[in-house]
Amino acid sequence: MELIPAVAQALQELRRQRPLIHHITNFVTMTDCANATLAIGASPTMTNAVEEVAEMAAAAKALVLNLGTLQQWTLEAMVAAGRSAAAHGVPIVFDPVGAGGTTFRTQAAQRLLDELPLAVIRGNASEITCLAAHKSGQDFGVDSRIGAADPDLAASLARHLGTTVAITGAVDVIADGQRTAEVHNGCPMLTYVTGTGCMTTSLIASFAAVTDPFTAAAAGVLAMGIGGELALERGGQAGPGTFHARLFDTFYALNDTLLQQYGKVLINRE
Amino acid sequence: MELIPAVAQALQELRRQRPLIHHITNFVTMTDCANATLAIGASPTMTNAVEEVAEMAAAAKALVLNLGTLQQWTLEAMVAAGRSAAAHGVPIVFDPVGAGGTTFRTQAAQRLLDELPLAVIRGNASEITCLAAHKSGQDFGVDSRIGAADPDLAASLARHLGTTVAITGAVDVIADGQRTAEVHNGCPMLTYVTGTGCMTTSLIASFAAVTDPFTAAAAGVLAMGIGGELALERGGQAGPGTFHARLFDTFYALNDTLLQQYGKVLINRE
Amino acid sequence: MELIPAVAQALQELRRQRPLIHHITNFVTMTDCANATLAIGASPTMTNAVEEVAEMAAAAKALVLNLGTLQQWTLEAMVAAGRSAAAHGVPIVFDPVGAGGTTFRTQAAQRLLDELPLAVIRGNASEITCLAAHKSGQDFGVDSRIGAADPDLAASLARHLGTTVAITGAVDVIADGQRTAEVHNGCPMLTYVTGTGCMTTSLIASFAAVTDPFTAAAAGVLAMGIGGELALERGGQAGPGTFHARLFDTFYALNDTLLQQYGKVLINRE
Repeated sequence: MELIPAVAQALQELRRQRPLIHHITNFVTMTDCANATLAIGASPTMTNAVEEVAEMAAAAKALVLNLGTLQQWTLEAMVAAGRSAAAHGVPIVFDPVGAGGTTFRTQAAQRLLDELPLAVIRGNASEITCLAAHKSGQDFGVDSRIGAADPDLAASLARHLGTTVAITGAVDVIADGQRTAEVHNGCPMLTYVTGTGCMTTSLIASFAAVTDPFTAAAAGVLAMGIGGELALERGGQAGPGTFHARLFDTFYALNDTLLQQYGKVLINRE
Repeated sequence: MELIPAVAQALQELRRQRPLIHHITNFVTMTDCANATLAIGASPTMTNAVEEVAEMAAAAKALVLNLGTLQQWTLEAMVAAGRSAAAHGVPIVFDPVGAGGTTFRTQAAQRLLDELPLAVIRGNASEITCLAAHKSGQDFGVDSRIGAADPDLAASLARHLGTTVAITGAVDVIADGQRTAEVHNGCPMLTYVTGTGCMTTSLIASFAAVTDPFTAAAAGVLAMGIGGELALERGGQAGPGTFHARLFDTFYALNDTLLQQYGKVLINRE
Repeated sequence: MELIPAVAQALQELRRQRPLIHHITNFVTMTDCANATLAIGASPTMTNAVEEVAEMAAAAKALVLNLGTLQQWTLEAMVAAGRSAAAHGVPIVFDPVGAGGTTFRTQAAQRLLDELPLAVIRGNASEITCLAAHKSGQDFGVDSRIGAADPDLAASLARHLGTTVAITGAVDVIADGQRTAEVHNGCPMLTYVTGTGCMTTSLIASFAAVTDPFTAAAAGVLAMGIGGELALERGGQAGPGTFHARLFDTFYALNDTLLQQYGKVLINRE
């Protein structure tokens, strides 16, 4: 199936099932991630105590692990939740916030990468190359190549990581090692709201509950990009506060027609 | 006094006193709970360190304990704050988020129920029956009976729990063992914003600082239900982001006239 | 240079540099602080693990330490980040939330004051006098004198504290021991949104990355005060929820013309 019709079908299915998406995420953007998950049509849970996360992850339809305000105790909870998700066939969507930025979070990101099966990794070019370098022992050079949406490099990173990657930036690239897709949606106002990356990860996880990782990654990225464009059209040009509120309105409003009308996707098959 | 005039009087008193409402609550909805508390006219504090919560609770006019993102250390803080509140005659409003969902939080909820005098418990039918089963050793059967607003069952749960309960759902039921009230306000858009349950608990606590638990529980539930209806009328049909912002506007705007005009309450006396 | 032109120049420089502002702050207002920092034109980071905050602070252009939901572990992270900032010449902006309110947070505030070089302290009159009393061994008497914007007292507090203070209230006073400035902007609706004090601190830190502490303190206070007035004009009279969203719009929109048109500053030189 073509990508946009597949995304539209997943969106319908998501709203029919209202799947539980468990999050172990950061303290800055967790409210927004919960509201993005609700607005797209899924159902968020967010507990992060090591005593209960295995139970929560087992009951969920997808699991988000986000390194934002990482602590040693949230890392332990992520490992426990991740193992439970793996044992129960629950797809894990990983957001390695700041990997490469400090030793603590680089090592934490590498540990999760080594110990857990990850369905999708969503990050910026610098975070994704940091992880691929760890996995492959290779140096992937300057980030700007990926920022310019180099599909060959994205495919190579996905192959080294053995998973689907969603590399977000001015242009977003999704790759699973076989297929790559570029998404040319979004707007600069998204960079004036904290957590749009984290919310994209939550949207991807919402879709991963009902479809394959590649379609889910594309769907989450499209929902954020189109959402940003619509939010700007629908009052958000007033500034980032109004834009932020409108963003949830647009996730809620997203449908087949809007996906067809606004989605700007380039598919590359190898 | 009739219930709605009693609520209106409590609202006036609340705004005159601007009482301190101390919260030990979850990390997902704490900002919204603080803003709901401010918007209705009270004054929130939210510190959660075990070193200082007894001092904070003693100085407050009501205490919220909310299990949302429970940790062992927040549980210890809840116990310390609760004991201090009890010693100083400060009413405790309890939100047993997810009780029955995992062993960790069920046991935590039971511990707070066993150790602290609770003025009001606000939860969904599943959470409230979980606690009543623990207290009474009885099985209260399917949740759907309460979801359909069965006042006899609500009264029975309140008696077993020895407190006022606010069971929220499509129809909300308040019961203290003697009186029951059904509140038929609200709208489905409330389910697309995270924390409307938690915010209802904060609103109840704000009222509990100035009136009896039954009136306070009804007042908090009414404020959220009417708030949701007004938020939808006043722009919130654009989607959950705009609706969310409007919700705080309506708590702030709530007054005697709106309570009389919008409030849909059925009282049952036994 | 006159103060308002100096603030306007700093704002331009801030938007040119987009400096990293590291925060160790509270869980209630951290999202809003991140969004305020973005909206004014800087770039927030918010990690709070003791394992990595020294690295983060060293890479930042200013550091916010905010006592809001203080825990022993966040205090240790503040000390580690503060030492690193000091070693790297990164200005520290301190928000002693609730100093004087409980023993735990008073002692924590005193410890940070004793151990770290602070570029600016932003607090209400009660918090600032609590710290000045500790530093000087003097009693500064009733808060209301400062609430009424007594520039001599503010100058004396700044001298005792050996830093720039921004004492916020109905009238805001900035003092560095030599100069004092009163800012007569703002509106009562600001008191119905949680975190406007914390956001002011983040705005001050954003400016402290590019200008001297006195100008930065005045700039942050002006941005919040003018922002509040503009937010009210631009839809915020609907209530605190809409006002809250509009506040970020106005930080983003702030410019030379608005600063000149709205800024109400009285300068006192001694």
